[in-house]
Amino acid sequence: MAWDKVQALVFDVFGTVVDWRSGVAREAAPFLARHGRRDIDPAAFADAWRSHYSPSMEAVRSGLRPFVRLDVLHRENLEAALRDVDMDPAALPPAELDALNLAWHRLDPWPDALEGLARLKARYIIAPLSNGNIRLMLDMAKRAGLPWDAILGAEVAQAYKPMPEAYLRTAEVLGLAPAEVGMVAAHNGDLAAARQCGLKTAFVRRPTEHGPGQTSDLQPAQDWDAVADDFGQLADQLLG
Amino acid sequence: MAWDKVQALVFDVFGTVVDWRSGVAREAAPFLARHGRRDIDPAAFADAWRSHYSPSMEAVRSGLRPFVRLDVLHRENLEAALRDVDMDPAALPPAELDALNLAWHRLDPWPDALEGLARLKARYIIAPLSNGNIRLMLDMAKRAGLPWDAILGAEVAQAYKPMPEAYLRTAEVLGLAPAEVGMVAAHNGDLAAARQCGLKTAFVRRPTEHGPGQTSDLQPAQDWDAVADDFGQLADQLLG
Repeated sequence: MAWDKVQALVFDVFGTVVDWRSGVAREAAPFLARHGRRDIDPAAFADAWRSHYSPSMEAVRSGLRPFVRLDVLHRENLEAALRDVDMDPAALPPAELDALNLAWHRLDPWPDALEGLARLKARYIIAPLSNGNIRLMLDMAKRAGLPWDAILGAEVAQAYKPMPEAYLRTAEVLGLAPAEVGMVAAHNGDLAAARQCGLKTAFVRRPTEHGPGQTSDLQPAQDWDAVADDFGQLADQLLG
Repeated sequence: MAWDKVQALVFDVFGTVVDWRSGVAREAAPFLARHGRRDIDPAAFADAWRSHYSPSMEAVRSGLRPFVRLDVLHRENLEAALRDVDMDPAALPPAELDALNLAWHRLDPWPDALEGLARLKARYIIAPLSNGNIRLMLDMAKRAGLPWDAILGAEVAQAYKPMPEAYLRTAEVLGLAPAEVGMVAAHNGDLAAARQCGLKTAFVRRPTEHGPGQTSDLQPAQDWDAVADDFGQLADQLLG
């Protein structure tokens, strides 16, 4: 079967392993309250912040800007999100913005993630292949107990997904052919790019990543090599 | 004290965390026997292989050769070591040489390493800062249970120690100033280079790394910020 030759599983993280929206909202709430903006829904603020995520990486992907780690983009995007809700970032203490920026380092895993990863780790090398930088992934793993074998991803590859280099350099660092690596993600676009590079693909449904009204990535868009509702199901299928 | 501001400890690995000489000898012994060379002491063969280590990296450090990972250099150095003992690498099955090359991925930690690292991990970020490549460090950690928070080192920095870039880029990836990072090594030269870059330094004695007749690195050559006989003593000093 497709998974027989796979030696390493690499994981999208934001949305696939951890619940970024609740985690960012949890840390944004006291910040917004402290600055007199209890009228803003913290989850909507998380969405606003995240809405700048892909455009900010596009400047790097297109070559307009040299590679910078995601912490730097998140910090810039925080200022943009504040302006979106008519708050002036220049009027806020920089140390508070720096602290809020670390919300992305303190996200909680989905309830099934730790146990599923522990099971998968017994047979496979497991590592993040996230656009998050090394220190971000490290802090998140240390806090939550994510049992990665190594921290891989955009900063190691010096390329942001879905650029082919992000997938191909990750396989190369692992000393593996692309077909010996499986990409696990809740996002059809990520998997499509991984498949184009020759990786095996596993889709895990995360239907509330974007909140209760989510409309995207509810179903697999292609015949991915595995499809599961959570990491427990994924482990059942891959470890069969 | 010197360690108050330190947030991350980075470790030399070959010799400091693991016993490379015994591990390589253990895997070289059946190889040499299989090819009719029981007359060669496997530990002496390990020494011969290791003797090509620093010169092979020097070609990269000097800029003569672009960065290549240590697995590639080890494989070339294996052929050189075979020629040193009058064995023709071209006459040996390449798959056997590839397999023997992975001996470096399967080294055992010194007896105190796992417990000491687990204690240090409770307070510090811990990561290798080795010239070994990511997959090598990953395989070693997975086999031996080394509890690294991330795999850092020469391949992430794209520079071999003792080049300053190896230390400075590692601190940068961690989002830390050099003085917030402590280098742990059994080698005075490694610590001297780390100190030049502003890192804190801890010397751990490994008086049998090179076998019973070791003459180098038996004592600290400078007033390092910590000096210990093993990782248990190091943890006592840093956590005390």
